[in-house]
Amino acid sequence: MGRKEQEKDLRLRGDEIKIFCPATVANVNCGFDTLGFALEGIGDKMVFRKVSTPGVTITVITGEELPMEAHNNVAGVAGNAMLQGIQADFGVEIEIHKNIRSGSGIGSSAASAAGAVFGINQLLDHPISNLELTRYAMKGEALASGNEHADNVAPCIYGGTTLITGYDPLRVISLPPMETVYVGILHPHIKIATKDARAILPKEVPLKDAITQAQRLAGFVASLYEWDKQLFIESVQDVLVEPHRKQLIPHFDTIKTLSKEHGCMAFGISGSGPSLFAFAFAKANIESYLMASKAYYKQQHLKVDTYSSQISGTGCQVIQ
Amino acid sequence: MGRKEQEKDLRLRGDEIKIFCPATVANVNCGFDTLGFALEGIGDKMVFRKVSTPGVTITVITGEELPMEAHNNVAGVAGNAMLQGIQADFGVEIEIHKNIRSGSGIGSSAASAAGAVFGINQLLDHPISNLELTRYAMKGEALASGNEHADNVAPCIYGGTTLITGYDPLRVISLPPMETVYVGILHPHIKIATKDARAILPKEVPLKDAITQAQRLAGFVASLYEWDKQLFIESVQDVLVEPHRKQLIPHFDTIKTLSKEHGCMAFGISGSGPSLFAFAFAKANIESYLMASKAYYKQQHLKVDTYSSQISGTGCQVIQ
Repeated sequence: MGRKEQEKDLRLRGDEIKIFCPATVANVNCGFDTLGFALEGIGDKMVFRKVSTPGVTITVITGEELPMEAHNNVAGVAGNAMLQGIQADFGVEIEIHKNIRSGSGIGSSAASAAGAVFGINQLLDHPISNLELTRYAMKGEALASGNEHADNVAPCIYGGTTLITGYDPLRVISLPPMETVYVGILHPHIKIATKDARAILPKEVPLKDAITQAQRLAGFVASLYEWDKQLFIESVQDVLVEPHRKQLIPHFDTIKTLSKEHGCMAFGISGSGPSLFAFAFAKANIESYLMASKAYYKQQHLKVDTYSSQISGTGCQVIQ
Repeated sequence: MGRKEQEKDLRLRGDEIKIFCPATVANVNCGFDTLGFALEGIGDKMVFRKVSTPGVTITVITGEELPMEAHNNVAGVAGNAMLQGIQADFGVEIEIHKNIRSGSGIGSSAASAAGAVFGINQLLDHPISNLELTRYAMKGEALASGNEHADNVAPCIYGGTTLITGYDPLRVISLPPMETVYVGILHPHIKIATKDARAILPKEVPLKDAITQAQRLAGFVASLYEWDKQLFIESVQDVLVEPHRKQLIPHFDTIKTLSKEHGCMAFGISGSGPSLFAFAFAKANIESYLMASKAYYKQQHLKVDTYSSQISGTGCQVIQ
């Protein structure tokens, strides 16, 4: 490297930023491949440094065993797609500090993909839109799950609750907040590959179930605009996917019953599982439900992680 | 009849009211069995008189050949269901002046059923809610089509655009208005029985189409709350039902192409057909499209009725 290059590199290294990228819950019962929301306080951290070497270089990964080569890493793939797309005249070094367990079903790969593009965007003089970021982040998701989907990366980038209304063209709607809703996440320590969770779904579904599910999703959207609690409760139901996927999750029906007994008003599979989410209008309900379900799983000799959270209005954010 | 009875009957006869009950478009492409809206200026008239004879007595029907016996007439069935439900201590004479052609697909039976319960409600000291009226009106719809559905009767009663988010319990949401939207209705003079239009639908549909349709409906709902024209246009699409039902409508694809050529931004089957609806943001587009499609059908030796309208904010209303 010549002196000029070294100087440029030093100047670039000044632009180091640290971000937080939240865990996300996709599907949310009535919005398979469509709805998602960001969690508060649960997420990964990433560090970005502008460098002259083109492309993404992953320098550090902590918390999980993940590939360091950019083309095998969701952050690397998403980041490189963006750097190429915007014809960047610089590269980035990325540190990835995982806190969201891989394969937990609360958007671990999405946090890395969304974080990568969000972080790079912070280094630009002319940042690109959240919609464009989502498109690049989807490239990273494709590495993880085999198909480009946005139901986790969109809420991770936009924050709050997002609705994908179409992929051709990609359309992301930020829905009004559900501020008084508390969320419980229960992560039983079993592995479900997203590919297996997809394979268990039937290719065809009864027309009447398709209509019911569409009514639920439309009701959910209207309930947020109107903030109609009763409609919200009636809408966060899944007739389409849960009956199939629940077979993959041990003691699903028991835990669902526990959630009701402890006053939660909605319960379902987060993304493709195995994590389960519950909604309640009071934090106490979430906490007693999480304690009870953790105790139940312990009796069954199954380890779980639990998180009590809320829906975060912000997605990825700079923390330093 | 004794003098007392005659006097009571005379007093009751003073309470004569005349109402207008609008034509309605159900399904609206993305909301099969779910969405509907009321049309402006197209509809039936009905006259109601409180009498001492219990139940519904249909005294006059003009415009269509329909059964005069209450139990064979949708207005009679809906009206009697309501009179029984509210334990009315009076009966009603109903005149039905049809303007909406039976079997046209723009809610002819719904107008009669909704009109009957709306009219009776006007005669009550303590009127019941629109939701309760909708439940009774559905009984009339069941006579016409074999199943209780609310996608026409709800907009006929509530006005504007309505969304059914569930039947158990019945839930009707009044969506925000789409005020700048013009509607063209084209009614080719062919007969399609609602039962046949249902029979042509597959019992199972591809999961991916179910998801797309749910995204369209959710996008439609969000587009009205946000009044996002582009999202509105992208959402008023039908991947679920149109591909099957369009076979029942002669020259469907040609007319759809004509609607696009004349600047309409949405086109589809009204209810179970044969009427077709089109949306445009300017009245001129609707009028030129209707003229062109009427001319085309004339070449094919097929008679049509056309209506240029808007979405009516009011449903049934008292006109005298």
